[in-house]
Amino acid sequence: MTRVRVDLNISLDGFATTTDQTPEKPFGEDWGRLTDAYVSTRTFRSRVLGDTSGAGTTGVDDDFASRYFDEIGAEIMGAAMFGLHANADDPDWRGWWGDEPPFRCPVFVLSHTPREPIPMKGGTTFHFIDADAQDALNTAVAAADGGDVRIGGGPTTVRQFLRAGLVDELHVAIAPILLGRGIRLWDDLRGFEEGYRATSVSAPSGTTHLTFSR
Amino acid sequence: MTRVRVDLNISLDGFATTTDQTPEKPFGEDWGRLTDAYVSTRTFRSRVLGDTSGAGTTGVDDDFASRYFDEIGAEIMGAAMFGLHANADDPDWRGWWGDEPPFRCPVFVLSHTPREPIPMKGGTTFHFIDADAQDALNTAVAAADGGDVRIGGGPTTVRQFLRAGLVDELHVAIAPILLGRGIRLWDDLRGFEEGYRATSVSAPSGTTHLTFSR
Repeated sequence: MTRVRVDLNISLDGFATTTDQTPEKPFGEDWGRLTDAYVSTRTFRSRVLGDTSGAGTTGVDDDFASRYFDEIGAEIMGAAMFGLHANADDPDWRGWWGDEPPFRCPVFVLSHTPREPIPMKGGTTFHFIDADAQDALNTAVAAADGGDVRIGGGPTTVRQFLRAGLVDELHVAIAPILLGRGIRLWDDLRGFEEGYRATSVSAPSGTTHLTFSR
Repeated sequence: MTRVRVDLNISLDGFATTTDQTPEKPFGEDWGRLTDAYVSTRTFRSRVLGDTSGAGTTGVDDDFASRYFDEIGAEIMGAAMFGLHANADDPDWRGWWGDEPPFRCPVFVLSHTPREPIPMKGGTTFHFIDADAQDALNTAVAAADGGDVRIGGGPTTVRQFLRAGLVDELHVAIAPILLGRGIRLWDDLRGFEEGYRATSVSAPSGTTHLTFSR
């Protein structure tokens, strides 16, 4: 049975993305520190960077990184996560993830501007849909063909799905840093935990992996 | 050597106290959920409630609760934590903690209104001082006589000491709940983690104990 899942890296003060992006630093100054434990894992290095040397951390952080990709049949992401906002004038923009993106499944990008689907190497096809959270999810569930659906990000998109009660499993990797700026994941989510079971695991990196499941 | 320590219970979205206090619920509606894991420990029941039956949880949460009191030679707290704001018209107000408070050491209450010291049973004496963070700390360190000094709360008071770089060890017990309201601990603390080592331990209660030490 399809489950709807979210995985995000957040800071201790709850910021899930930066707001200081520049053309030179398209992810912002803090992004590296926010994602450091995840980016250092063997899974990330292999699956996202194509590094087949076996380098990277193993253990708790890598276990979660590996689960990040397991059994995902379709992904939904916001337009900003695909890079549409930062590259609005480029009709040939194909996303941040290179020729062979790590998703290897249909990816539904939420956008008010229609675009033709973009098939990539390795099984990823980017589709662009203008839909609310429930309709987008219905489309993704159908495409996932029994696999899970991940809401990839960013935090504003994720929060829409959380608030609509559409997420079965929320995993946050909490980095022990205070950013003091960016976009908060937790705004307007009072009482979200009701109906979920919370489990917490600490990694030697100092990262806390907190999961809400129902 | 005296170390300056902080222990606070916070929600996942960073709220360390409530703002919905009423005469009937002087700690606010959410306080019980915020402190549930701590209040359930054997240490809290024994030390704060005077329950000598041995009831209460043991394990990770209780280990931290026990450390909460170890080797503390003096405590500093804000006027609101002592209850001065909520009981401003009562010149005989003696705090929230009954005749025999759990501190068992000198407690320095930050207040602009001078009051005579209040000696209590069990070794606690409440002193009222009108001082900035550094001066209050100097006073408390002298009184601690080689013991540690704890900044007890509330979060606004704690944040003053954190921002002034005066805290050697910050322990937060993060409850897996989203309050969405109250007073945030983390505001204006960007980069606090620099110079500290972060360690994280998860308890079966779902609480994450995160400690910054230097």
